[in-house]
Amino acid sequence: MPNDLFITNVRPMGSGTVNIAITDGAISAVGPDATAPEAGTPAVEGGEALVFPGFIDAHTHIDKTLLGMPWRRHEVGPTLMDKIVNERELVKRLDLDSHERSMEQVRRSLANGTTAIRTFSDINTEWKLKGFHGLLKTREDVGGLMDLQIVTFPQSGMLIRPGTLALMDAAMAEGADVVGGIDPCSVDRDPAGHLDAIFALADKHDADIDIHLHEPGELGAFSLDLVIERTRVMGWRGRVVISHALCLGGVDDMRLRGLAEQLVELDIAIMTHAPGGHRAIPDVKLLRSLGVRVCSGNDGVRDAWGPLNKPDMLQRAYIMAYRNNLRRDDDIEELIRIVTTGSAEVIGLPKHGIEAGARADLVLVDAETHVEAVIEHPPRKAVIKGGRVVARDGALLDGIL
Amino acid sequence: MPNDLFITNVRPMGSGTVNIAITDGAISAVGPDATAPEAGTPAVEGGEALVFPGFIDAHTHIDKTLLGMPWRRHEVGPTLMDKIVNERELVKRLDLDSHERSMEQVRRSLANGTTAIRTFSDINTEWKLKGFHGLLKTREDVGGLMDLQIVTFPQSGMLIRPGTLALMDAAMAEGADVVGGIDPCSVDRDPAGHLDAIFALADKHDADIDIHLHEPGELGAFSLDLVIERTRVMGWRGRVVISHALCLGGVDDMRLRGLAEQLVELDIAIMTHAPGGHRAIPDVKLLRSLGVRVCSGNDGVRDAWGPLNKPDMLQRAYIMAYRNNLRRDDDIEELIRIVTTGSAEVIGLPKHGIEAGARADLVLVDAETHVEAVIEHPPRKAVIKGGRVVARDGALLDGIL
Repeated sequence: MPNDLFITNVRPMGSGTVNIAITDGAISAVGPDATAPEAGTPAVEGGEALVFPGFIDAHTHIDKTLLGMPWRRHEVGPTLMDKIVNERELVKRLDLDSHERSMEQVRRSLANGTTAIRTFSDINTEWKLKGFHGLLKTREDVGGLMDLQIVTFPQSGMLIRPGTLALMDAAMAEGADVVGGIDPCSVDRDPAGHLDAIFALADKHDADIDIHLHEPGELGAFSLDLVIERTRVMGWRGRVVISHALCLGGVDDMRLRGLAEQLVELDIAIMTHAPGGHRAIPDVKLLRSLGVRVCSGNDGVRDAWGPLNKPDMLQRAYIMAYRNNLRRDDDIEELIRIVTTGSAEVIGLPKHGIEAGARADLVLVDAETHVEAVIEHPPRKAVIKGGRVVARDGALLDGIL
Repeated sequence: MPNDLFITNVRPMGSGTVNIAITDGAISAVGPDATAPEAGTPAVEGGEALVFPGFIDAHTHIDKTLLGMPWRRHEVGPTLMDKIVNERELVKRLDLDSHERSMEQVRRSLANGTTAIRTFSDINTEWKLKGFHGLLKTREDVGGLMDLQIVTFPQSGMLIRPGTLALMDAAMAEGADVVGGIDPCSVDRDPAGHLDAIFALADKHDADIDIHLHEPGELGAFSLDLVIERTRVMGWRGRVVISHALCLGGVDDMRLRGLAEQLVELDIAIMTHAPGGHRAIPDVKLLRSLGVRVCSGNDGVRDAWGPLNKPDMLQRAYIMAYRNNLRRDDDIEELIRIVTTGSAEVIGLPKHGIEAGARADLVLVDAETHVEAVIEHPPRKAVIKGGRVVARDGALLDGIL
């Protein structure tokens, strides 16, 4: 059968050496004695490499990356609005094509072992659905090589730019997956109005919600209160992600625990990529210890917002470890779960992991332990997507994307 | 002459393509028209590679790295004392040989383009000078291939472990370069006593001082006040480094500016490697804007304190950019100066840089711009130490160390 594969001598986290049998793109057996699905099945000799489930980039902006283009000096002012305005101007000036840009990032992500992406699609009254349509085309072009979820995202504001909501509605009707929102107080200046509109749109399209929340301290916590209320009333349990959630690093311990309790109750997940800077950020270990589900992503990769992020979730796990000062192996192993199975669960992908029944999205890495692989994040030895070998030694195979 | 070299077609930061002529280990000419020192001088064709001055690791602990040893699970408790005690036990249990350990790190650092290291040498009443003697041997063995400064460092405490100060005195007499100290309040519990002893030892040996200061907020600022007083009274201007200086991230703006003014007046430099964690850290851009000199280093590399740091100052510059949220090219270029010429000046190395008269410590990197090189930190194309090519494509040449 196509997409049958037999992988020998690889080491999953927390287990000895195994073979992995893949039938029709899904894992059919895992174990030291697992045998090939049938005689003549193509084989990959693992050579004692580590094996990870495919990495999940649950928060990025692939429509705007400058990867593969000439270096641009980054000279943007410090505020959020500086960056939003600068980006709109740059996209226009460079006439960035969201299809071309997103294909570039998808290729590099896949070569680094990312097998699913949740991307935000900027929708505003200037570009209208142009960028979104480029992403739709990318989703079509990548086919089974990358799971791609598209979030309708009002980066430039929604209520403050009338017409945006109707465009988001149109995008949802045309096939976007998730309804996005942004800083209900500080961008739209009308938190109840912003969130009511977002939740109504999600209800109309029976869609999940993913809200960028950069607002600091008690302001962000207030917006989060409003999200929690609506999640509860609308019955949207397990369907809301709060991205960034910087406020969770900026409120006192009692307030944090009160919020966390409700996040757990309503299964609202937090996306953090462990940003830099001198303001407090969410403490991943603390959130996990309180039972909050956490996913991660690379955020914008070399784009108008800055050049620091890379399309590599194994490097992201390293950044998360460093930024959160997590040095213990068990803590870093939890980060590995976050960038693989954890993020897959949060964004609602099918069964993901190294077990029978899961889709055969797998990444082989040469290192001594999984934690060492995080720290060194060397080029991936092999990437398997849906049972098909798509990359070796850090590069896509010929003919892949 | 030995250590003559002619490097063609390389790009220094902020300049067009140049050639670099090297005579007897020092740069004799730089420019688009620079010619070989004489006919037959060995040549390196740069191929439009970027060129950096050698990287300076101004703060590390090469006597204790676990690099090159089997992976050890890191399972240490959260406090400073947990880590200090764990380390002493581990060094004993594994019978770590400081000469062997330090040679391992020096090799890897040099392959990554580090051409000078200031290392701390743990001195305590248990090991006495055993580790220090291993480092002395390393300094001898590396000869001209790595500038190595050794700081006598009372990691386990000085006054609380009587006999330590005498051992430090003996190490200084045997050839250590710099007098170290640590957290005068929280480790030794007698800040005036600790600092008086450190400064007296420095005075006796006419040596510079480098003090680890992890103490947070106003406690650390108080210790810093005491350091400032002694630096002024003793006339030790330009001879004191405060390593970590976490307190500079944890005091209010007016207190910070008051301290910074005195740091500038007395030319006390700050070493920061931009640590992770959820506590505030020194803001590199703010310190530089106030005129404070800043140097950097990798701190402990894969050792009993944790596995996250690597022996690579180009990656360190990336971490510093990420941790300080510096995304602008000009800000990242300032970090490049810090890990090269800035750190060289702070630790008192001879003229360092890409200019006539400087020692020919140079690193070639393939990337589009110097900032991109920071972000990608690819294997170094070539490393030149004192006019001699010592590494290519990330690996030391045969016969080098």
